[in-house]
Amino acid sequence: MNDHGEKTSIGEFGKYGLIHHLTKNFRPSLKSTLLGIGDDAAVIDSRNCQTLVSTDMFLEGIHFSLVYTPLKHLGYKAVVRAISDIYAMNGTPEQLLVSTGISSRFAVEDIELIYEGIGAACERYRIDLAGGDTTSSVTGLAISLTAIGRADKGSIIKRNGARPNDLICVTGDFGAAYMGLQLLERERRLFEKSTGIQPDLAGYEYVIGRQLKPDFPAGTLLELENSKIVPTSMIDVTEGLASDLIQICKQSQTGCRIYYSKIPVDYETSRVAEEFNIDPVTPALNGGEDYELLFTAPLEDIDKINSLHSVKVIGYITEQPEDYFIAGDDGSEVRLSAQGWTGKAAT
Amino acid sequence: MNDHGEKTSIGEFGKYGLIHHLTKNFRPSLKSTLLGIGDDAAVIDSRNCQTLVSTDMFLEGIHFSLVYTPLKHLGYKAVVRAISDIYAMNGTPEQLLVSTGISSRFAVEDIELIYEGIGAACERYRIDLAGGDTTSSVTGLAISLTAIGRADKGSIIKRNGARPNDLICVTGDFGAAYMGLQLLERERRLFEKSTGIQPDLAGYEYVIGRQLKPDFPAGTLLELENSKIVPTSMIDVTEGLASDLIQICKQSQTGCRIYYSKIPVDYETSRVAEEFNIDPVTPALNGGEDYELLFTAPLEDIDKINSLHSVKVIGYITEQPEDYFIAGDDGSEVRLSAQGWTGKAAT
Repeated sequence: MNDHGEKTSIGEFGKYGLIHHLTKNFRPSLKSTLLGIGDDAAVIDSRNCQTLVSTDMFLEGIHFSLVYTPLKHLGYKAVVRAISDIYAMNGTPEQLLVSTGISSRFAVEDIELIYEGIGAACERYRIDLAGGDTTSSVTGLAISLTAIGRADKGSIIKRNGARPNDLICVTGDFGAAYMGLQLLERERRLFEKSTGIQPDLAGYEYVIGRQLKPDFPAGTLLELENSKIVPTSMIDVTEGLASDLIQICKQSQTGCRIYYSKIPVDYETSRVAEEFNIDPVTPALNGGEDYELLFTAPLEDIDKINSLHSVKVIGYITEQPEDYFIAGDDGSEVRLSAQGWTGKAAT
Repeated sequence: MNDHGEKTSIGEFGKYGLIHHLTKNFRPSLKSTLLGIGDDAAVIDSRNCQTLVSTDMFLEGIHFSLVYTPLKHLGYKAVVRAISDIYAMNGTPEQLLVSTGISSRFAVEDIELIYEGIGAACERYRIDLAGGDTTSSVTGLAISLTAIGRADKGSIIKRNGARPNDLICVTGDFGAAYMGLQLLERERRLFEKSTGIQPDLAGYEYVIGRQLKPDFPAGTLLELENSKIVPTSMIDVTEGLASDLIQICKQSQTGCRIYYSKIPVDYETSRVAEEFNIDPVTPALNGGEDYELLFTAPLEDIDKINSLHSVKVIGYITEQPEDYFIAGDDGSEVRLSAQGWTGKAAT
């Protein structure tokens, strides 16, 4: 409650803030809970190996709109989202549990399509579907996934290890999935206004593909290992590059400085952003759903990192906590901020 | 699709049938997946110990109605449901991951209540909340739980080990949670018709308590161990005694015969059932949400089992698969059937 006796709005918390707030009185008490709330996955002692477990929920109208999301893609994307948390701990996802809440407007064939997508992702990433549940729903389609992975003791990379002067590194490019979503939303509105118009999405394949069927750069983890680069912290970019980088800084009690001109943005993303009159770096920083890897590494690894095709350096970690900046080419600096808890409305 | 080109309705499958249908082409391919789909929890090799993981989804309007479910009880009950799957494998639940989808009509204080209930259950059952997520929802409250547990190699009890002549044993009593739900629904309808009427639930404390705040008889597992009784199969009764017993029989390729007069029903449950003009054994067999233990044990353990206060024998396993019967006192026999996939509408 605030001073006026009103209840606290959920929107006042960030996404991470709310879960922290809700769980701050929970303390791990068992030896086997090596790492609980606050990172991408829980770490559980399994003697020689450590078991990683992570869970994600997908809700209709929030994480996807069935107007333009093929059900097969939905299943695939849900898996990628779930396992990206295991990869982001430097683990290997191995099992998956899937629960679905299904309303009566779906037929068995529809749900099969979701599972086809799940199966395609399981095959690509070599994971076993190892359990789950189906239940009916009166409120729309809901999918919950639990990913389980393993990591050797000592090889797990958390969010809290970044140190001043560490390089901030990313894979891939950013903002494409967000611009893909904007395009799909625009076509949906046009379609609803006039049923005669068929969506024409030629020339937009990349951004739409990134929205509907993302993949995770799992190979980069292997490249890092082969190059003997040991990241000091790591996270998967799902909330948005700015928001996820700030997570690393908060947990590491550092600041950061990244460079506007270094943020990787695909040409098609830029073009679509221009169509929408948006600076392309805005969706790159705040769009989310990029499913890329963000990590920090010691400065002395700069040559090794530069030799990796799949990784780009976008800035460095600074000493002062809560000082998060993006520097422009003209020397100007703008404070980075994590987006509020908007829930990425897809409706 | 059927012969007429129509899509298959989900209702045509049972709950277990649908998940089997959807996942029948998934084959575990990793050494570490010791047990995948088809039991209460997935078993994952962790060298000396085995990790058990199970996931459950709770959806508003299906698993609970917020009209009469206090949020704290909702959190507690969700945990009991999640960990009952670990216990039913003869494991010890140790960690829990919770994801919640929350619509904007909830305030932080409301969600805190859910977590208070989760915390109370975690304390009672000695488990750590070890992760999770919050997301916004436009479709109602959704809660997804993942329970993780451990078991020594060789001590895990599955559903498929029942053998002819094994005793069918249960803890506690049945049908109370279902009759509690019927009562709450009746009061809700009365309340909605005339806002002047306050619900009077005196004398119904037991059945309502069983609906709103169930507990799991975890202590019985210890009693069994101490008495050196090794169940041949085990399941937690959540779908309904008949449905869950049939699960054991199906997976063990056996039949069963249970006795009408042996089904444990509490006096209060009987009284409420009479008020509703229902034979009390009907909700006991088909009501569900009992959170009791159902297991089979070798006939030679009968004396040891009879010495346990918390366990009752209700029948025995028979040889012929798909022969599931309940025998009346008059010698009549009625075929047991699993209920269809109704989703336990709470609306």
